[in-house]
Amino acid sequence: MEGPSKYLENLIREFSKLPGIGAKSASRLAFHILKSGGSEAESLARAVLELKENIVTCSICGGISDSDVCPICADSGRDRSSVCVVENARDVLILEATGSFKGIYHVLMGTISPLDGIGPDDINIRGLVERCSAGGVAEVILALNPTIEGDATCLYIARALKPSGVRLTRIAHGLPVGADLDYVDSATIIKSIEGRVEVHS
Amino acid sequence: MEGPSKYLENLIREFSKLPGIGAKSASRLAFHILKSGGSEAESLARAVLELKENIVTCSICGGISDSDVCPICADSGRDRSSVCVVENARDVLILEATGSFKGIYHVLMGTISPLDGIGPDDINIRGLVERCSAGGVAEVILALNPTIEGDATCLYIARALKPSGVRLTRIAHGLPVGADLDYVDSATIIKSIEGRVEVHS
Repeated sequence: MEGPSKYLENLIREFSKLPGIGAKSASRLAFHILKSGGSEAESLARAVLELKENIVTCSICGGISDSDVCPICADSGRDRSSVCVVENARDVLILEATGSFKGIYHVLMGTISPLDGIGPDDINIRGLVERCSAGGVAEVILALNPTIEGDATCLYIARALKPSGVRLTRIAHGLPVGADLDYVDSATIIKSIEGRVEVHS
Repeated sequence: MEGPSKYLENLIREFSKLPGIGAKSASRLAFHILKSGGSEAESLARAVLELKENIVTCSICGGISDSDVCPICADSGRDRSSVCVVENARDVLILEATGSFKGIYHVLMGTISPLDGIGPDDINIRGLVERCSAGGVAEVILALNPTIEGDATCLYIARALKPSGVRLTRIAHGLPVGADLDYVDSATIIKSIEGRVEVHS
């Protein structure tokens, strides 16, 4: 959208670079900034810069943190015998939001994807093997997505961890809560039948 | 979403304040910034700040601009006898993107809306009347949205401009190009019948 202000065009272009933001949304966001108070624009700009300046990767789990050794790894109240493996740092936040997992994490930073040229050595599997062979880990829970890449990565990790004797599990795949069989794809239904559990009465 | 980094939470909160951006989108955007190069984050932050610092309102049309008297009002190639009235500065960009209007604009900065406490004196109708009585304007085209507020504003402007003798028109409302009668609401169909035009053979 050509316009009377190069500053406006510039901000629209910057917003358009963000994922899921098209030209119309970008223009709407830029006009919102324009109408908002100066302090809102400043705090957005500051938040963007501070994030890039201050965030580090936890040397234990590979997750993001404000200080090396993230608050989760540093928390003595967490169960260190249970390690949840996730694809990326954002998954840690998503799982933490549920409040259901009390163990610690291991962030792979990707999945094995030969088509994209990503092999086992390109993601942090070596670190996971080292953590398991160092002792103290009783169970590794794979919380990878049910995609071809996620499945391949699970398989590879299963082989890599076999010598350690650690119990290896994977989160369940099946019908989402509240779903209707009528609207669920057949791959999910097949997974839900394969992963069926006993009903105790 | 609680997380291991207050900088991340801060940016997610800032993104959530933007229109149409929910908590999940905000988190996705923040992680995009995190993964992107430092220069992308910097140029976004700079674009936000520069917009607020540099943009001004054109003293002629009320649109936004980098310099007083916007490029459109300053362009000697535009037809000054034709003034298009729009609700806000963003509408100018939307109309300019079509490239179909060669006249100049007048930005009302709102519409008459008694429910929101916005009366005729709260928007820039006085400026429009002054521009028309100063002479040189042959036609005023109302490009206001077909809402109750837009309709009320059109009516008010029609009365206010009557003494000037300027020709007053309103953009057509009817079926969008490519639409199907079956999927168009009845208010639009009524408008399209009211506004029917002669077919010449």
